[in-house]
Amino acid sequence: MSHIPLPDGLPGIVGPMIAYPETERHLNGLADTLLRAPSSLPPGERETIAAYVSSRNECAFCAQLHASTARHLLGTAKELVDSVLARGAHAEPASPRLKALLEIAGKVRIDGRLVTAEDIARARQAGADDKAIHDTVLIAAAFSMYTRYVDGLATWAPEEPEIYDAMGAQLAENGYTKTIRGLGGVEE
Amino acid sequence: MSHIPLPDGLPGIVGPMIAYPETERHLNGLADTLLRAPSSLPPGERETIAAYVSSRNECAFCAQLHASTARHLLGTAKELVDSVLARGAHAEPASPRLKALLEIAGKVRIDGRLVTAEDIARARQAGADDKAIHDTVLIAAAFSMYTRYVDGLATWAPEEPEIYDAMGAQLAENGYTKTIRGLGGVEE
Repeated sequence: MSHIPLPDGLPGIVGPMIAYPETERHLNGLADTLLRAPSSLPPGERETIAAYVSSRNECAFCAQLHASTARHLLGTAKELVDSVLARGAHAEPASPRLKALLEIAGKVRIDGRLVTAEDIARARQAGADDKAIHDTVLIAAAFSMYTRYVDGLATWAPEEPEIYDAMGAQLAENGYTKTIRGLGGVEE
Repeated sequence: MSHIPLPDGLPGIVGPMIAYPETERHLNGLADTLLRAPSSLPPGERETIAAYVSSRNECAFCAQLHASTARHLLGTAKELVDSVLARGAHAEPASPRLKALLEIAGKVRIDGRLVTAEDIARARQAGADDKAIHDTVLIAAAFSMYTRYVDGLATWAPEEPEIYDAMGAQLAENGYTKTIRGLGGVEE
C-alpha cells in the first residue's frame, strides 16, 4: 500500500503525478525536454541511460518502463537495452560514445563528484558534444529523483511485462506530457 | 574548472541553468512549486529540508544556498537551520512534525525504499498531512537531483558567505523563477 492515498490502479509515478498535478507539470516537462527534445544523442540512447540509472537504483517500475520505452524507440537495435541493463558501460554493441556516457551516468547516480576530467575527455574523444555531456549528467540526476519519488511513496509497480510494453509504446510515440494526460485525464 | 563550458562568474546551478534554458524552465518551475506554493508546511521549513538533504549530499553550493534562503524565510527562528544541519532529525527546537519529516527526507536521500509505514505514522501523529508527506519525499528526491547536477558538472561554488546570504535573500523574497531570470537575464 502506498504511504499516502493515491488514485486506484495507476502504476508507479503515474499515481502521485495525477494526485499532485502542480508538480506533475514540471516533472513531465523535464522528462519530455531531457529525453525527447533535439539533441546530438538519439532519444533511444537517452532512454537507455534513464533505464540504466533506474535499474542500478533498483526501482522496478522505472527500470522496466524506461527499458520498454527505449526498446520501442530503438526498433531493430533494441537488444542494446538488455546488454546495458546487464553490463552497463561495458555493454555490447554500444558505441564508444554511449559507453563513455554510461560511465559518467553511473558515477553521477552515486555522487556527482566522482566524475573526473578523464571521464569527460574520453566521452569527447568518442564524439560526445557539450550538450550530450550536459544531458547525460542531468538524466542521471533526474532519475536519481524519479526513482526516489516512486519508491519513497511506496507506489504500486505492476508485474506484467505487457503493461510496461504498452506504456513504453505510448511514451515512445507521444512523449511524456501527452501520455500522462491521456492516462490520467489531466486537463491541459 | 567545470566539465563543460558555462557562462563566466555564475555560481553553482546558475551556470548550467543559464546555458541550458530549455531544462532550466522545468528545474526552476519544480523548485518554485515545491518550495513556495501553498502547503501545510511553511516555506522556511521546506527550505530547511532542502538544505538538510543538500548538506548530507555534501553539495557545498546547494547546502549553503538553501540554508541561507531558509534563514531569510524563518526570520527570528533562523537558528533552527544550524541545528538541523548539525543534528538532522534530532534538531532542537524543531517541532515533532519537522523532526519526523526530516527523518523521512534523510531516508529518501539514501534510498526511497528505506521509508517505513512507522515513519509515515509518526509524521501523521505529529500533524503532517498527505501533502506535507508528499512534498517532503519529493523535496528530498529533487535535491538528490539538483546536487548531482551541480556536482556532476563540476560547477563553481563561491566561498564567501555574503554571496550565499545575498542570493538567499533574493530567493526568499522573489522565489526561483523570477530570481534566476534576474540573475542571468533569461527572457520570459
